[in-house]
Amino acid sequence: MPKISNRAAEMPASPVRKLVPYALQAKQKGVKVYHLNIGQPDIDTPKSAIDALKNIDLKVLEYALSEGNLEYRTALRDYYHSLGFTDLTTENFIVTNGGSEALNFALSTLCDDGDEVIIPEPYYANYNGFTSTFNIKVVAIPSTIDTGFALPVIEEFEKKITSKTRAIIICNPGNPTGYLYTREELQQLANIALKHDIVIISDEVYREYVYDGKQQISMFDFPELAENCIIIDSESKRYSMCGARIGCMITRSKTIHDAAMLFAQARLSPVLLGQIAATAAHKDDAAYILQVRNEYTHRRNVLVDLLNGIPGVICPKPKGAFYCVAELPVDDSEKFAQWLLEHYSNNNETVMVAPAGGFYSDPELGKKQVRIAYVLKEEDLRRSVELLNDALQKYREEFSL
Amino acid sequence: MPKISNRAAEMPASPVRKLVPYALQAKQKGVKVYHLNIGQPDIDTPKSAIDALKNIDLKVLEYALSEGNLEYRTALRDYYHSLGFTDLTTENFIVTNGGSEALNFALSTLCDDGDEVIIPEPYYANYNGFTSTFNIKVVAIPSTIDTGFALPVIEEFEKKITSKTRAIIICNPGNPTGYLYTREELQQLANIALKHDIVIISDEVYREYVYDGKQQISMFDFPELAENCIIIDSESKRYSMCGARIGCMITRSKTIHDAAMLFAQARLSPVLLGQIAATAAHKDDAAYILQVRNEYTHRRNVLVDLLNGIPGVICPKPKGAFYCVAELPVDDSEKFAQWLLEHYSNNNETVMVAPAGGFYSDPELGKKQVRIAYVLKEEDLRRSVELLNDALQKYREEFSL
Repeated sequence: MPKISNRAAEMPASPVRKLVPYALQAKQKGVKVYHLNIGQPDIDTPKSAIDALKNIDLKVLEYALSEGNLEYRTALRDYYHSLGFTDLTTENFIVTNGGSEALNFALSTLCDDGDEVIIPEPYYANYNGFTSTFNIKVVAIPSTIDTGFALPVIEEFEKKITSKTRAIIICNPGNPTGYLYTREELQQLANIALKHDIVIISDEVYREYVYDGKQQISMFDFPELAENCIIIDSESKRYSMCGARIGCMITRSKTIHDAAMLFAQARLSPVLLGQIAATAAHKDDAAYILQVRNEYTHRRNVLVDLLNGIPGVICPKPKGAFYCVAELPVDDSEKFAQWLLEHYSNNNETVMVAPAGGFYSDPELGKKQVRIAYVLKEEDLRRSVELLNDALQKYREEFSL
Repeated sequence: MPKISNRAAEMPASPVRKLVPYALQAKQKGVKVYHLNIGQPDIDTPKSAIDALKNIDLKVLEYALSEGNLEYRTALRDYYHSLGFTDLTTENFIVTNGGSEALNFALSTLCDDGDEVIIPEPYYANYNGFTSTFNIKVVAIPSTIDTGFALPVIEEFEKKITSKTRAIIICNPGNPTGYLYTREELQQLANIALKHDIVIISDEVYREYVYDGKQQISMFDFPELAENCIIIDSESKRYSMCGARIGCMITRSKTIHDAAMLFAQARLSPVLLGQIAATAAHKDDAAYILQVRNEYTHRRNVLVDLLNGIPGVICPKPKGAFYCVAELPVDDSEKFAQWLLEHYSNNNETVMVAPAGGFYSDPELGKKQVRIAYVLKEEDLRRSVELLNDALQKYREEFSL
């Protein structure tokens, strides 16, 4: 039997993946599972995007340019101009197969084996997939539920920066916390990045979905970071087109751009069809974005208010994205999540949640927390929380908590 | 200025990429460039695939499963059953964003930093992109033009295998040589892989396009390699849909499959739309494949006969794929290729070829060779060779060769 690489052997399994067989078993028993565990919205993709596919007028589905076709990069440039970043040209963008590949390119461009990236935790668990692939060490700095997962004090970053630190990764607004960084927090990060000449990799794929009249502040708002900033963007969440696999990596740094292009050229081409769909979606999206933002705002309000109404549950109100992290009155959220699928049902229904341990470098920190996505419609969210409330009571009885 | 990683700094540039600015300049001067340098066929994508996109009946472009959606994996399974590999199930396939990602997964699953893979050269230059990304050392074994690029004697492989060797990569039929391995050659590779417990990674994306009544023999034809074989496949060349970015990695080894799935899960999902197009294409493709094979056979015959008619040109007749490697009567094929774009034109037309140095670990070995793709229609191929003939005379005069 040939040897498997260490990079594969040591890769942490996704926190949800372990639960998948139990969800399948539940479904095979005829139990309906409400999926609060994944960021797959039930929101329609813009009609303009679907129509662009339906009206496709191509005889050959040719390679796109490695950096993405000019028409789509023009749409991206115009979109970034509308955000106020009018210095950007089509040359600043590399179109990628989802935000995943953009992150992949950013990390491989900056980091060698044993290099370090600093990430405030809890953080998006798939970051581990990419860092493990390249043997990059994640240095996590805990944020806490009592501050709503605000940026840890900047001195903690200062302490963790070593000669091997290449980047700080943030997700803004955040998956899994829904936290929206303030200008002051981002300025602190900009200062520290410049001081140590490291890069801020800012994952801003949820930029459109911030609530209560607030606006996301992009890391591009700090022009002093021209050589020290990479933005990760994606159409997946903006237009509910996760399966189109269209994202991009954007930087003002020609050095970083040109190095990342080597990886883009090695894989030849990003997907063509997703670029066609996304180009169309960008053309006239104001009403769509507004409507979806309103829908998420409503869902968030419904979900978080109901969750906080359950005895023993603490859930800070997220300011953006479509997740929240809730603390539950349980001994172990992974055990509870499995129990929900394996032993619990009410009227033949149950819920699936993502145990938050997988979002922390030290799983103990998330042992009582779960991530809940509010990507389902209102009535499903209401029923899910009802189930969760009922399940918590039964679980606590069964295990004498 | 932040530091760029060594894996980026040391990545070899694609052999063609350096020529791109010269091609652009030629076009800006109004010169028409015949592209013999890239594997982008002008063949139509099957109508069934385009129609599947036009008739798309989805409201949400959702994530596909990380391993690929069941419907598409079922189409792949049926296709492999039709090739005679009836033991395969949908569980043996991981759908990827092009053959590129399949290769990426195979290498990261098997190799750590400093590990070695053996590849007969000349080999597809983008293999370097993936090996460099993971700091894998390529140990190349030269094949030569006088044997038509047959497999080097097996003793050469034996000599190069070390404790760090993880795999042998072959491309069959081959890019850039068009060579089709014989059963005896493949059996020798199978024996050596088993003896040393290493893996054969067999890139078979040109499987359908073999000529003269011959049939490709897959590495899957050697059941003794169950634990030691990975097949790289793609729809890009089969259905002339390079931009759809749909490929797959296939193995009978559950160990390798499960490890590769970790990388598949980290990037969440392969493209959805390409799966829809490819599923449709697989449904009824016999006439399409036959017609395209006939077309390539004809183009190959026209091209290779004309090339061999030019004084001083040697071009073995390829048995498969749609490339050939030709030796030209020049001092340096890279210099010649650049000269073609920068200084040559005839009736405002010129040709672009891929210097073969980039397909060898030692560029000297390919210094007089170029790769030519026969993906253009007959009249364009005829005109291209006419230009090449004329250009060679002028070049040899100018540099007194």
